[in-house]
Amino acid sequence: MDTKPVLPALDPRTVPARKSTGYPTEAFRAMVAGRGKQALGDALGLANFGVNLVRLEPGAYSSLRHWHTRQDEFVWILEGEITLITDQGEQVLGPGMCAGFAAGVANGHHLTNRTSRPAVYLEVGDRLPGDGANYPDPNVDLQVRSTRSGYQYQHKDGRPYE
Amino acid sequence: MDTKPVLPALDPRTVPARKSTGYPTEAFRAMVAGRGKQALGDALGLANFGVNLVRLEPGAYSSLRHWHTRQDEFVWILEGEITLITDQGEQVLGPGMCAGFAAGVANGHHLTNRTSRPAVYLEVGDRLPGDGANYPDPNVDLQVRSTRSGYQYQHKDGRPYE
Repeated sequence: MDTKPVLPALDPRTVPARKSTGYPTEAFRAMVAGRGKQALGDALGLANFGVNLVRLEPGAYSSLRHWHTRQDEFVWILEGEITLITDQGEQVLGPGMCAGFAAGVANGHHLTNRTSRPAVYLEVGDRLPGDGANYPDPNVDLQVRSTRSGYQYQHKDGRPYE
Repeated sequence: MDTKPVLPALDPRTVPARKSTGYPTEAFRAMVAGRGKQALGDALGLANFGVNLVRLEPGAYSSLRHWHTRQDEFVWILEGEITLITDQGEQVLGPGMCAGFAAGVANGHHLTNRTSRPAVYLEVGDRLPGDGANYPDPNVDLQVRSTRSGYQYQHKDGRPYE
């Protein structure tokens, strides 16, 4: 590249990575501690869907295993090796492979990096209102529900996390 | 890869490329004759947004220069060199660069391949209802409007193309 992209083009390296998570417990947060997200869609002014460039350090997970009630999700592997975990088990995906998780399909999924080098992928998710998320693993007492004050992390019995 | 991806993962090479276009004139169709699209999102059962793996042969364009009224668009360059053309002029984007076109921003855009080898990118667009598209170039007498019977290609005075 001899020139620097200018909007509406973007060099992803200029977008800061976010390491934070809204997960309500330390154990949940530990799962994604090695995850960094660069919000490319937001940086480009897009509102209808999010696009993140995600980097998983060795051992990190994309999220707790979950499925969405209204949001479609798409991932495209760019670098390294990603292990996709669903109800059907595990499969390893390399660069140029993709995956999709349609809204309402009750198949909990997440990605992890079981290698010794970073892995990078693009993720896309729409922003239709009224989404929820369910976490099928019995040791994960969590759900996300849409409330009047926004999305809320709850216990599976509906009590909000403090 | 020692294993073949299975849904919800997907090897894009298993998805057929579509070369067709709905453009209503031969001159418009010629612009995108060297364009092939693999509908990855559809193949993964996603409905809220489309994800296409697009290949532009040398000289091909992504589309006529246009902007959408409701649809956000995102592109990520995977291989080769893409020239992005907007009201501000041209810029060349290589692998790992991206661009985004927010709904309602009246800045006509398209991509072309000015090199001698194929270029490949991912494109994402949402599917909110009631979208329209405007084509600012004076020699392109075209607009897309949402009608009761679906999206319609029209002349700029509103007459539908036959």
